[in-house]
Amino acid sequence: MSARDIIQAVRDSAPMPAGALTRFASGLANGEVSDAQAGAFAMAVLLRGLDVPARTELTLGMRDSGNVLSWSGGRPVVDKHSTGGIGDCVSLILAPALAACGACVPMISGRGLGHTGGTLDKLEAIPGVITDLPEAKMRIIVEKLGVVIAAANTGLAPADRRLYAIRDVSATVESLDLITASILSKKLAAGLGALVLDVKVGSGAFMPDIAQARALATALVETANAAGCRTTALITDMNQPLAPAAGNAVEVRCAMQVLTGTASGPLHELTCALGGEAVRPGGLW
Amino acid sequence: MSARDIIQAVRDSAPMPAGALTRFASGLANGEVSDAQAGAFAMAVLLRGLDVPARTELTLGMRDSGNVLSWSGGRPVVDKHSTGGIGDCVSLILAPALAACGACVPMISGRGLGHTGGTLDKLEAIPGVITDLPEAKMRIIVEKLGVVIAAANTGLAPADRRLYAIRDVSATVESLDLITASILSKKLAAGLGALVLDVKVGSGAFMPDIAQARALATALVETANAAGCRTTALITDMNQPLAPAAGNAVEVRCAMQVLTGTASGPLHELTCALGGEAVRPGGLW
Repeated sequence: MSARDIIQAVRDSAPMPAGALTRFASGLANGEVSDAQAGAFAMAVLLRGLDVPARTELTLGMRDSGNVLSWSGGRPVVDKHSTGGIGDCVSLILAPALAACGACVPMISGRGLGHTGGTLDKLEAIPGVITDLPEAKMRIIVEKLGVVIAAANTGLAPADRRLYAIRDVSATVESLDLITASILSKKLAAGLGALVLDVKVGSGAFMPDIAQARALATALVETANAAGCRTTALITDMNQPLAPAAGNAVEVRCAMQVLTGTASGPLHELTCALGGEAVRPGGLW
Repeated sequence: MSARDIIQAVRDSAPMPAGALTRFASGLANGEVSDAQAGAFAMAVLLRGLDVPARTELTLGMRDSGNVLSWSGGRPVVDKHSTGGIGDCVSLILAPALAACGACVPMISGRGLGHTGGTLDKLEAIPGVITDLPEAKMRIIVEKLGVVIAAANTGLAPADRRLYAIRDVSATVESLDLITASILSKKLAAGLGALVLDVKVGSGAFMPDIAQARALATALVETANAAGCRTTALITDMNQPLAPAAGNAVEVRCAMQVLTGTASGPLHELTCALGGEAVRPGGLW
């Protein structure tokens, strides 16, 4: 099936042979799919939708468009992903906490998006911290500490990198199917066995509406599980900042206070709730 | 309104301010609209459709993306367009016949497409005929003969040239709105005052189904008239070849036989019917 025929099948909600969307994803990464085809594909997906098997195949195809990490040592490989909020520094607390519980946590994080902060930006408020790590260095850190927080390098899910840039200019950012494939292709490329999702809802979230948040959480959970990664989601309130402060350096301080047991409140509570979800499907207990 | 916002408005069937689609068309020609945006736009138009004012604005914007010819001398400027059939050499007969009736006929023609023949290919079966003419040469020929049949040069409707190539690879060829804008932008750029359309239906046509053919004829007629070009359409049978022979050189011979009054039959009848339509709105009588 050519790229053109795959776009046409999505456009017409027609069945596609297995492997078609895998090839489309690899064509995004190797350039066989043109920009015009990627734009038309994204719009067809947005307007017609993908069913769960098709969305899962696209996600796995995008994951497999680049390096897929694997981890030895027998520890459950676990991660958390948030759809983005204000004062959300849960990752800075939860990642080392999960490692302390015996998990391997290869956390691939992002930068701030819109009005929401990014874990990498926050971490870099600590003088000397470097988040742009080659795979070999990530492995050394995980071996020693059980946890690493790093930027996605160019080798991970290159199909997503290309499609993401195209969606941004072509009014196709809002597709639940494409949001799902984008988030999960990068997460799954980190070699996860289990994942917990924090889907934010409220005036400070990308999804202000509970129905939208539930639809996104459902799409993410059903796709990730279909892809073989045990996944649950919490839909959590983002009508107020999560930490008592918002800003890169001050959120690092808030995270340290929770980690050292000197602060409680919503940040502490949500971290515990997400941690409980993560270790349950992660098989730690 | 940015290209992204225009795509989003089409995607959501939301109203657009006047001038938005004109700018999008000029962005197609000057490169401000990216390939990814053009692909997403084409898919949004195919799946959501444009209303008549929007389709007309896009058509006029594509016409105005390049040179628009104008003709002096007071003769009605008239042309015919066929959606393509087998043994359809009507243009070779009708163009000089309309000129003989006093019209100015600047006929911009195309090559064969799929299984259908192209007027330029047929004409070039005559040894020595050149169809790739600069505008100045076209003007000299029209001045002398009242008729020219030539290929579209790169200066005519460059937005259509770009969008056409993108539609071909992005499964967006079938959009009635885009077919209409493509055909009419080139025809209107030739400076027509009146146009007659031959929309083919049947097993040898691109539209095998009468409902589809009627929809295309309606879209073309309402758009061309809204754009200020008096236009009618005939929906004609293409279940059999029109001429008694099919092939470039043999169809030139068939055309000559009709022109010299030595043959009758379907080719002669259809040419007369289309000619009648052309001269009526063309104001020749």
